[in-house]
Amino acid sequence: MISIGIDLGGTNIKAALVDEKKGFIHQISIPTHADLGKDHVFDRIAIAVCDLLEEQNVKPIGIGMGLPGMVGMDRQTVKNPPNLPGWKVENVSAEVNKRTGLRCVIENDANLAALGSARFGVGKNEESFIMVTLGTGVGGGIIYNNKIFRGTTGMAGELGHVIINYHGPLSNSNTRGGVEAYLGQRFLSRFAAATIRQNTDNPLYEKFRNDFDKLEPVDLHKAAKEGNELAIDILRQSGEKLGYALVNYIHILDIKKIVLSGGVAKAGDFLLKPAYDTAYKYLMPPFREGFEINYETLGNDAALLGAASLAFEELS
Amino acid sequence: MISIGIDLGGTNIKAALVDEKKGFIHQISIPTHADLGKDHVFDRIAIAVCDLLEEQNVKPIGIGMGLPGMVGMDRQTVKNPPNLPGWKVENVSAEVNKRTGLRCVIENDANLAALGSARFGVGKNEESFIMVTLGTGVGGGIIYNNKIFRGTTGMAGELGHVIINYHGPLSNSNTRGGVEAYLGQRFLSRFAAATIRQNTDNPLYEKFRNDFDKLEPVDLHKAAKEGNELAIDILRQSGEKLGYALVNYIHILDIKKIVLSGGVAKAGDFLLKPAYDTAYKYLMPPFREGFEINYETLGNDAALLGAASLAFEELS
Repeated sequence: MISIGIDLGGTNIKAALVDEKKGFIHQISIPTHADLGKDHVFDRIAIAVCDLLEEQNVKPIGIGMGLPGMVGMDRQTVKNPPNLPGWKVENVSAEVNKRTGLRCVIENDANLAALGSARFGVGKNEESFIMVTLGTGVGGGIIYNNKIFRGTTGMAGELGHVIINYHGPLSNSNTRGGVEAYLGQRFLSRFAAATIRQNTDNPLYEKFRNDFDKLEPVDLHKAAKEGNELAIDILRQSGEKLGYALVNYIHILDIKKIVLSGGVAKAGDFLLKPAYDTAYKYLMPPFREGFEINYETLGNDAALLGAASLAFEELS
Repeated sequence: MISIGIDLGGTNIKAALVDEKKGFIHQISIPTHADLGKDHVFDRIAIAVCDLLEEQNVKPIGIGMGLPGMVGMDRQTVKNPPNLPGWKVENVSAEVNKRTGLRCVIENDANLAALGSARFGVGKNEESFIMVTLGTGVGGGIIYNNKIFRGTTGMAGELGHVIINYHGPLSNSNTRGGVEAYLGQRFLSRFAAATIRQNTDNPLYEKFRNDFDKLEPVDLHKAAKEGNELAIDILRQSGEKLGYALVNYIHILDIKKIVLSGGVAKAGDFLLKPAYDTAYKYLMPPFREGFEINYETLGNDAALLGAASLAFEELS
């Protein structure tokens, strides 16, 4: 079985032909031109589908598409997606179907990244797991009994806005002390910069003293690998914060397999080990059995494979 | 349809004949004698069933039973239940069946309180809700799409051990800054005593100065109703803590109907209003729609009615 997976972002439309068993057959990416408005974006999606199918002798069963924002329980409509100016409540499936002749189902992109991991990634062997995406923001998706856990309105799994310290800093959202306010890329970088500024003898101070805005989590990871104790300590403290959030997810959901993805998660064991140790320490003992953190290597492909998987599951 | 609901506690065995439509037909309670060991307790359960059925001309379809502790996904076995000394991994259903000739399913008592509310209480009109029990400890159960959400091992909904402040106090469990460490009866009383001790001109100081151990949340509620500003403030602060926890439940589960039960929840609006206001403030805007807190008046009957409901659903 073959389907089309689409990842609709504010900057690019990525589209892929995916075989249910073998994975990617063909992939393309074109600019979204989101600023030209929604009708233009729907046209661009149709162009992406045309481009993708050109010279490919296949019959896809339909389109699965991921996008940011609140997707309705019907998996057709999206409400006020961020990064897509001018969109209100839009029946995306109908618009795409009108232009391509193909059936289309949509889903929140973070949920689809989890589904992609479940079908093609490290989540493959788990019936239930929690994917935590550590990127610009902190997001995630919950797979429960082999399906996306959607909650009552399709918004379940706002994992970045889970409070770990009500005295804590505000993040982008109006939640205070949510885990995103510690591990979101910008927040982590800001915390690191503040710490490094107090350690003027550290090599990282010399490197970034003229422009701390350039400091990114990857720089911390590099320095940590070189044995920079301050970088190791910053990542350890951040990992501990993640650990507290994991305790909350696990105590509520009783799902003990965690899958991490996203740029910040690339810091590997410097971040993961303190996260694991902290969560293990604060989990109630019966919840420790089977507790595991794995890293998803699919990267951005997870959402695209998840989108195609959604089509297999909803349209076949 | 008629079933037997049993609430097995460390002190008493409560048993009830329940009609699926009309609710309670007949109820009894006998001491558990938990200290005499598990075989004795199983015998006591059989005695309770005999006593209950005496002179009742009915044919129950089976027994649903709630007990504290981890109930297996098979709904027959329990693992290390607290308050029942000497119990390890026990097939309760088999033991009860052997002694009564009736089929028996079991479930964690907090989950059954939620199910009881769903079938006979304020949860009746909701497909999904989160029940938060504010008693000696803070616990709860999650109803999702009309069923108990059990997680992967039957332990979902450990709502009291959700961290709201990782710097916070330890509670009974090894979690730090969990909401139970603020709202569990003992913790709330201790916080209240400490606050009142600093306000020697408050009538509550005069009343409890010789024995602050006697101070209970109900005394705060009484004083609040009489206009005692300090009591109002203590309940307000406690309600705010609950509000932070609600944000976490809702952001993870996308279930926006909250049902409160338990003794501490009797403080009513003095506690509920600050909880609601705090959660509303910190919820991401799309999660505010449909957010509601209701109070369950069934009290301890909720678990018993939930036990009987489990029998209707699993044994009919």
